[in-house]
Amino acid sequence: MAEQFQYGDIFSANSIEASPGSVRHSKYDFAVAYPDPDTLPLNDLIDAVKSGFEREGKDLAYYSSPSGDPELRKLVAEKLSLERNMTVTADDMVLTSGSGEAIGIVIQALTDPGDVVLVEEFVYLGTLNQMRRYGADCVGIKCDDDGIIPEDLDSVITEQKAKGKKVKYLYTIPAFQNPMGWTMSLERRKQVLGITGKHGIPVFEDDCYADLRFSGENVTSFHSLDDTGRVIYVGSFSKIIAPGMRMGYLVAPKEVIARAWSFKSGGAVSQFTALTIAEFMKGNIDRHIEEQNESLIAKRDAMVAALGENFGSTVSWTVPDGGLYIWVKFPEGTDMATVQEDIFQDGVSYYNGSQFSASGEGSNYVRLCFGHPPVETIREGIAEFAKILDRRKVFPR
Amino acid sequence: MAEQFQYGDIFSANSIEASPGSVRHSKYDFAVAYPDPDTLPLNDLIDAVKSGFEREGKDLAYYSSPSGDPELRKLVAEKLSLERNMTVTADDMVLTSGSGEAIGIVIQALTDPGDVVLVEEFVYLGTLNQMRRYGADCVGIKCDDDGIIPEDLDSVITEQKAKGKKVKYLYTIPAFQNPMGWTMSLERRKQVLGITGKHGIPVFEDDCYADLRFSGENVTSFHSLDDTGRVIYVGSFSKIIAPGMRMGYLVAPKEVIARAWSFKSGGAVSQFTALTIAEFMKGNIDRHIEEQNESLIAKRDAMVAALGENFGSTVSWTVPDGGLYIWVKFPEGTDMATVQEDIFQDGVSYYNGSQFSASGEGSNYVRLCFGHPPVETIREGIAEFAKILDRRKVFPR
Repeated sequence: MAEQFQYGDIFSANSIEASPGSVRHSKYDFAVAYPDPDTLPLNDLIDAVKSGFEREGKDLAYYSSPSGDPELRKLVAEKLSLERNMTVTADDMVLTSGSGEAIGIVIQALTDPGDVVLVEEFVYLGTLNQMRRYGADCVGIKCDDDGIIPEDLDSVITEQKAKGKKVKYLYTIPAFQNPMGWTMSLERRKQVLGITGKHGIPVFEDDCYADLRFSGENVTSFHSLDDTGRVIYVGSFSKIIAPGMRMGYLVAPKEVIARAWSFKSGGAVSQFTALTIAEFMKGNIDRHIEEQNESLIAKRDAMVAALGENFGSTVSWTVPDGGLYIWVKFPEGTDMATVQEDIFQDGVSYYNGSQFSASGEGSNYVRLCFGHPPVETIREGIAEFAKILDRRKVFPR
Repeated sequence: MAEQFQYGDIFSANSIEASPGSVRHSKYDFAVAYPDPDTLPLNDLIDAVKSGFEREGKDLAYYSSPSGDPELRKLVAEKLSLERNMTVTADDMVLTSGSGEAIGIVIQALTDPGDVVLVEEFVYLGTLNQMRRYGADCVGIKCDDDGIIPEDLDSVITEQKAKGKKVKYLYTIPAFQNPMGWTMSLERRKQVLGITGKHGIPVFEDDCYADLRFSGENVTSFHSLDDTGRVIYVGSFSKIIAPGMRMGYLVAPKEVIARAWSFKSGGAVSQFTALTIAEFMKGNIDRHIEEQNESLIAKRDAMVAALGENFGSTVSWTVPDGGLYIWVKFPEGTDMATVQEDIFQDGVSYYNGSQFSASGEGSNYVRLCFGHPPVETIREGIAEFAKILDRRKVFPR
């Protein structure tokens, strides 16, 4: 092999090594937030491709509207108006490659190295990773079963400002929070809006689980409670159709979209995918969501039951009204981080709390995703999980 | 309306305003590089969705391999080995949202503000825009009908280095160059590789038109002529299936992919689209490319004939062996830039040379894309173009 060219000196100062990596699966996969492959609406999607092509297949020849298919944006705006009480049109929105891209470009638009960014005490690690990538100092706010604790929010902001820090924004997943599973109450949302407003801080609302409610009462979006353009909103089709569609959206004031857009390479999203989703929305999406939520509640119940049967009273867990996650608390001092890879090798995968924590604390928590495996596999897997923990003497009980 | 929140102080130092904008069409659209909507393989794509779903539709439930569908990468690697003589496997590649995203993340990985980046004297404006976005000082290299002129390349590099500038890389579109239409000869490619090698500069090869050869002899890729990892390669399905698929690929040494990847938000490309393209490649892609090229040569001939019939001898143009563009030279001093918007309003659209130029020169050139309109429309449109230029007295003849 010839001597290889050395790129070392050529890389930009901003670049870091970030191998795309690969995905690993365990026998009982409670780690990654996949939907159930058996509930995918594949036949409906084929029909949607056909009717999409009939309607406007020739549009594929064009580099479509950079904001993404206007028809899909219109349908999303209607859905958000109806279900999340948002005052929004197709023009207030851009389509993105999943909500991940929306989150990434908003973070880049709003974050300089050293800025303080507020998050829930445990929060989606993909967002934490992107915030850290661009130099944010992520600070967690304490939460209880109703969401962010307003007093803690206020005192953290005051404290950070006193230190001379610039507090840029609050990122929140208020519905079926990832990983904690709670939904923030209306009262809390209003309080959070009030406190951030007092301090001049926008709220970045990640509502990607909003459709996955299978019990309890709907709570309106942060976005609907604000009329000053201070809430930036992202949503996604990953959880209600499939992650492999890579389709999300960003709703924000025009100036925010313009700044975020300056970090987007590659132009509009796949028009082929957008066209298909638009047709799917016209037909079967509500029925599909309903069926999916019926499946999810059965899985949640199975996991809750299995936890009850297999774990002692020193372990506790949440019972969410929607979403994909059960948040399990092991006794203080239990270290679920160190054994995680071994337990993966044993056949059960999960994420531990420290992975979701701005401060790296919380290794006595684990997030279990019940969305992917069938009910029977959940039962088996939770029993297996308990056995492995006993065998490895991970915590006393 | 409530007083709106002011984001001014919150935006990051790196962000700029970059509205997604919208796309405009004229009656005779020779501006944007669209394929012909009537040649899109819509029925084949529907079949591909079906067989893709049968084979691995359930994979949509997963956040797929971050590098993109392994099956599609394998098929692309085989195609590049066979047709571009490249030594490449699925592991040397990541899928991207069109080649635009690949170009954007490579530019970010290799460019610090103030770096010199070399380009052909006229070159794809999307790339120029992205280079400028990240602070590159773009410097054009003179070209003739065989491509980059080696002596100019050598002297420009020497000159820039003498000024203390860091010359980072050479970006080139060596096959059916955009906008000039030539294909770089094998001899020139070797010379360009030699000169950049002497100066320690990588070559960034954008081969997105490689499949669109309808006459003349194939010329191998830059990538195949190098065994030191010094050539970074991008390709795309935009020109051989449809831009609306948003599917491209980046072939590069692992360390380059890792650095480029650090600027990609949103994870893998649409698995739905990737799956469909993989199935389409297994079946009908060669036949489709053949049919498309038969259509393109007829269009090129129609445009060349119409230019001959309607334009006097003071205007000259290239006759490309492939691709989508005819590069038209008007007499020195003709200003095709100032009248461009008026002529768009009159019904004919094109891009003028200054838009493709690092230095902003060349407004006596225009790029005409013959890929999109039917033959009859090309004939009419070129006649109309000549009439408009006469009426507006744009140049003497």
